[in-house]
Amino acid sequence: MTSPTCIALPKIRFERGFLAGRAQLVRDVVIPFQWEALNDRVPGAERSGTVNNFQIAAGEKEGKFHGYWFQDSDLAKWIEAASFGLATHPDAALDAELDGIIATIGKAQQPDGYLDTYIQLKEPHMKWANLFEYHELYIAGHFIEAGVAHFEATGKRTLLAIVCKLADMIERTFGLGAEQIPGYCGHEEVELALVKLARATGEKRYAQLAAYFINQRGVAPLYYEAELKRLKFEKLPVYFHADGWDYLQGSRPVRDLVDPVGHSVRMMYLATAMADLALALPDESLRKSCETLWDNLTRYHLYITGGIGSEWMGEKFAERYDLPNDRAYAESCAGIGLVFWARRMLDLSLRGAYADVMERALYNNVLAGMALDGKTFFYVNPLEMRPAEAKRRYDQHYIKTQRVPWFGCACCPPNIARTLTSLGYHTHSVLPDGLAVHLYADCRLEATMGGKKTNFALHTDYPWDGAVKLEVSPAQPVTFTLRLRLPGWCTAPTAKLNGTAVDFAAKVCDGYLYLAREWRAGDVVTLDFPMTIQRIRAHPAVHHDAGCVALQRGPMVFCVEQADNGAQLGQLRLPKNAPLTARFEAGFLGGALVIEGPGQRVQAPSDELYSTTEPTVTPATIKAVPYCLWNNRGEGEMRVWIRES
Amino acid sequence: MTSPTCIALPKIRFERGFLAGRAQLVRDVVIPFQWEALNDRVPGAERSGTVNNFQIAAGEKEGKFHGYWFQDSDLAKWIEAASFGLATHPDAALDAELDGIIATIGKAQQPDGYLDTYIQLKEPHMKWANLFEYHELYIAGHFIEAGVAHFEATGKRTLLAIVCKLADMIERTFGLGAEQIPGYCGHEEVELALVKLARATGEKRYAQLAAYFINQRGVAPLYYEAELKRLKFEKLPVYFHADGWDYLQGSRPVRDLVDPVGHSVRMMYLATAMADLALALPDESLRKSCETLWDNLTRYHLYITGGIGSEWMGEKFAERYDLPNDRAYAESCAGIGLVFWARRMLDLSLRGAYADVMERALYNNVLAGMALDGKTFFYVNPLEMRPAEAKRRYDQHYIKTQRVPWFGCACCPPNIARTLTSLGYHTHSVLPDGLAVHLYADCRLEATMGGKKTNFALHTDYPWDGAVKLEVSPAQPVTFTLRLRLPGWCTAPTAKLNGTAVDFAAKVCDGYLYLAREWRAGDVVTLDFPMTIQRIRAHPAVHHDAGCVALQRGPMVFCVEQADNGAQLGQLRLPKNAPLTARFEAGFLGGALVIEGPGQRVQAPSDELYSTTEPTVTPATIKAVPYCLWNNRGEGEMRVWIRES
Ligand SMILES: [Zn+2]
Ligand SMILES: [Zn+2]
Repeated sequence: MTSPTCIALPKIRFERGFLAGRAQLVRDVVIPFQWEALNDRVPGAERSGTVNNFQIAAGEKEGKFHGYWFQDSDLAKWIEAASFGLATHPDAALDAELDGIIATIGKAQQPDGYLDTYIQLKEPHMKWANLFEYHELYIAGHFIEAGVAHFEATGKRTLLAIVCKLADMIERTFGLGAEQIPGYCGHEEVELALVKLARATGEKRYAQLAAYFINQRGVAPLYYEAELKRLKFEKLPVYFHADGWDYLQGSRPVRDLVDPVGHSVRMMYLATAMADLALALPDESLRKSCETLWDNLTRYHLYITGGIGSEWMGEKFAERYDLPNDRAYAESCAGIGLVFWARRMLDLSLRGAYADVMERALYNNVLAGMALDGKTFFYVNPLEMRPAEAKRRYDQHYIKTQRVPWFGCACCPPNIARTLTSLGYHTHSVLPDGLAVHLYADCRLEATMGGKKTNFALHTDYPWDGAVKLEVSPAQPVTFTLRLRLPGWCTAPTAKLNGTAVDFAAKVCDGYLYLAREWRAGDVVTLDFPMTIQRIRAHPAVHHDAGCVALQRGPMVFCVEQADNGAQLGQLRLPKNAPLTARFEAGFLGGALVIEGPGQRVQAPSDELYSTTEPTVTPATIKAVPYCLWNNRGEGEMRVWIRES
Repeated sequence: MTSPTCIALPKIRFERGFLAGRAQLVRDVVIPFQWEALNDRVPGAERSGTVNNFQIAAGEKEGKFHGYWFQDSDLAKWIEAASFGLATHPDAALDAELDGIIATIGKAQQPDGYLDTYIQLKEPHMKWANLFEYHELYIAGHFIEAGVAHFEATGKRTLLAIVCKLADMIERTFGLGAEQIPGYCGHEEVELALVKLARATGEKRYAQLAAYFINQRGVAPLYYEAELKRLKFEKLPVYFHADGWDYLQGSRPVRDLVDPVGHSVRMMYLATAMADLALALPDESLRKSCETLWDNLTRYHLYITGGIGSEWMGEKFAERYDLPNDRAYAESCAGIGLVFWARRMLDLSLRGAYADVMERALYNNVLAGMALDGKTFFYVNPLEMRPAEAKRRYDQHYIKTQRVPWFGCACCPPNIARTLTSLGYHTHSVLPDGLAVHLYADCRLEATMGGKKTNFALHTDYPWDGAVKLEVSPAQPVTFTLRLRLPGWCTAPTAKLNGTAVDFAAKVCDGYLYLAREWRAGDVVTLDFPMTIQRIRAHPAVHHDAGCVALQRGPMVFCVEQADNGAQLGQLRLPKNAPLTARFEAGFLGGALVIEGPGQRVQAPSDELYSTTEPTVTPATIKAVPYCLWNNRGEGEMRVWIRES
């Protein structure tokens, strides 16, 4: 069977609605702003140095390398995002800008294909010498993704040629051959990129190279142990802390992983590649491993916002159920990685649970990473904020109380940008016998169904309203199957086909509604996913959330902010039976649905720190806003989990 | 008016009961064990090097300094503890051991009086050059305390002479004179020691030297800023984190402190010296500052166990109400410092609130520092323990899941030892017109009341039972005032004098019962402090304790342990109206009172991490044990704050 594919980005347009607005913000504000940042032209922001490094490596400039050893990847992610933007919204100036920087990259690339300005400019003797810490293959991966995106958006092979040369060099260098390095990258990324490259070029050997990296990872005798000895390290870096080689998913063969472990972005990129290869090779053992990891991630390690990673030191996964809210890491990039992985899992097995998590992570953790004006970003996305403590406690020192314009380690902003400019990759799958809709966002798209060009128009006010109208317009009548996700949060979905109620019996499988028929121009499917306000409770083993509820409506998780509810949000109580209402407030936070209801505020019986007297409560109105919109009104307290009374 | 004084240790004996048992354990086990540890003769314990360092400095041995720059203080604290032990329990071998090490210390001391083996052996060029980090004056302070203790216990002036020579040299070196250093120690301690030395020697100039250190601290231009420049430091050490010079109470004059700040042991030793000087000089402004600091410490910064310091980085005080349980620092030494300070406050103003806190800290935080067998110790005393997380999370890496025999930084074990061997200093005050009883522990003591030798015998099973019988036996009838503390936790205290109920009206002031009369041999005061099981709630601003209660009975705070209640203590619930009973269990944890009652255990409605279904509960028996006895049955979970339902 042919594998499912994504819709080519030029074939799908998001013109109105919530996600379209965020994507437009990225094109209008973020991409231009990030280009300025990469060029060190943003006053007050931390210096990036990224473009400068390439200009130096290309011989266009004198100077010294600036930044982290993974700095190059910021440029790659930006190129990818900008290319995605171009795919749907042509922009001659941006196109030319891309041509310019691609030419520079080409000049910076060494004759054998090697490309990593940190190593080239700062530590040339360290080429491939410290795979566990340095990010040479990781950077290669991001350039490969950029090259594929640029090619698919513009049809130009300039960057694609560069990255093929790079990938060919990697293929020659790594492997189990006599003259090869039997290693792999400390930060997974090249694996998933190579699968994309294989798909874009039709060269299956790139997928086989990815499979080499995946299969060799964690195999005894451990490559990294020998490397460590060569490098004369006495011990592992502090960010490995209690995890050893699990920090980089390297302590055992990947098929033996049970829970997600270590650095969460690394873990997600690994899992994404594992799912990719499970489909592309195919490889049943990788599919099974992916399913185990998925089950354990979603059962033990996932914040309700779709954030992952609850240990700042090493940006890592922690123990099962250990999900502190004020010390969440929940890096924007990790949420994005989870979106990627979930999307691949949907192509492996069409199950609503994957789409549910993808939606949760996208609408909450990922979108929270960017301010409403697109100018500032969160790297870390806590579920609870008390600014005074966050600024004073060392164990929260990594948490910013407000979004910032740029970071010294700026992985997240361009990652958010590339995700939002490639929405179409995530919303739908094209299958051999039809189309699957995973995420409902207002859009128009064109796909070939049963050999016939077919237009689809999806109208919805999602995520604020669960009514969806899907117009299907094939050029001629054609038979195919529409697979429509029934969101897991919705308890009573309904559907009509051309006005007639659809009987779900025998048509629903694993959270998708299957509509197989001959479709004709003018066919309309209407779906309704009633959005009620849900009170979510965490598993009681998550002691951090004990006694609390979170509010969710549709895919959106809500939070209370100081701006609406006053300070000391920990003293707010939501009575079990309090009637809650949802209201759309047009002028508020760019237009947002808010939840309101009668609550309580606990009053201290006295000034005493400890007392046998029970506290009293006074009435208080509770107003909750979508979590992804928090912190757009200055510094203040925030809580997702509200104490119940 | 003459100031209150302590009872000389040889005049008071604790022979039976809970505290007497712990003190005996210290004499029988801890002091000999620590002597072995200081001599590096404990297999498996971290190397101390302390005695060895002195032997090298004394020219008795070749070798290199080992340990921290404050290592010497471990020996000083041990000498102090051992001397206290000798005061009540003569021991010729220990006496000789002390004579031996004191001779070595004398040889190690430099001709001008200087004594600090770290500087002498390792960095002689750094003498007095880095006051903010090195601990030369701190060590001097501990030796001064040891010298006074040894003198008072044995009458020998050997160590006293050494420390007077040391203090004289410090007096010449520090001050505002032209040739003097206008500095002060980064770690307060010498100040309180100098007040003791003044009292022991009658030399008031030592108290004036202490006053210089206190008055000069934090005065602009800051001495440390100039020092930092001389040392070419580019920034403050990481453990200062967000606090700047507040880390060592050095950002402003001490009289301007409002909340306790910075390193909590430093803060306590400073406050102790401030209270000492407020009384000794006297100094009203220092008294007022002490009262402000006290109010703010007890209102905002005190764990229910009497622990202080809730920030591991820098072992510091944090924001008001920021008292996390699983990340408490609550260092044993800080609790001891609080006991010292509270004791001084009682001599400044006889208020029951000071004794209440002293009692709380001693019976809970401090006693928890030592295992039931006296062989292992806690440095950090959390109020909640989940071993798997504590071992894995970096932000809990400083928390030991079990007591350990010794620490590289071994400040706490000898500090606990010296506190428990000097109980008599804390239980009573001798006043010009009588005696005050602050803590009720079974004991016999002798004091001079109105010129007449008077014996007191106090019989009680405190802290398990609140009945107290006090026999007063003056050699001849004599008029004086007995001041008997009415514990703040007791809501209905009663007293009888020779069988007749005492009417409290007009006899109670600030938590003390004043009995002024002519006392005759055979007079008996009986007190009854009914101990009920109290459910304590924290101020609602302490969000860490929201929805929880702590159980207290008498001075003892209780906790639930996994050994009695199973794992996942966060899923345990104590219903609001659950009847709780107290029961003494003779063979359990060395004989301990336990609290039992019907509780609940929350059951997950499903495997789902998040769910709209409310969890169910099943019945469970709750058994709570005294907090100070936790972790005597192997590694396991523990909680002081129990969720209420
Ligand atoms: Zn990131
Ligand atoms: Zn200590």
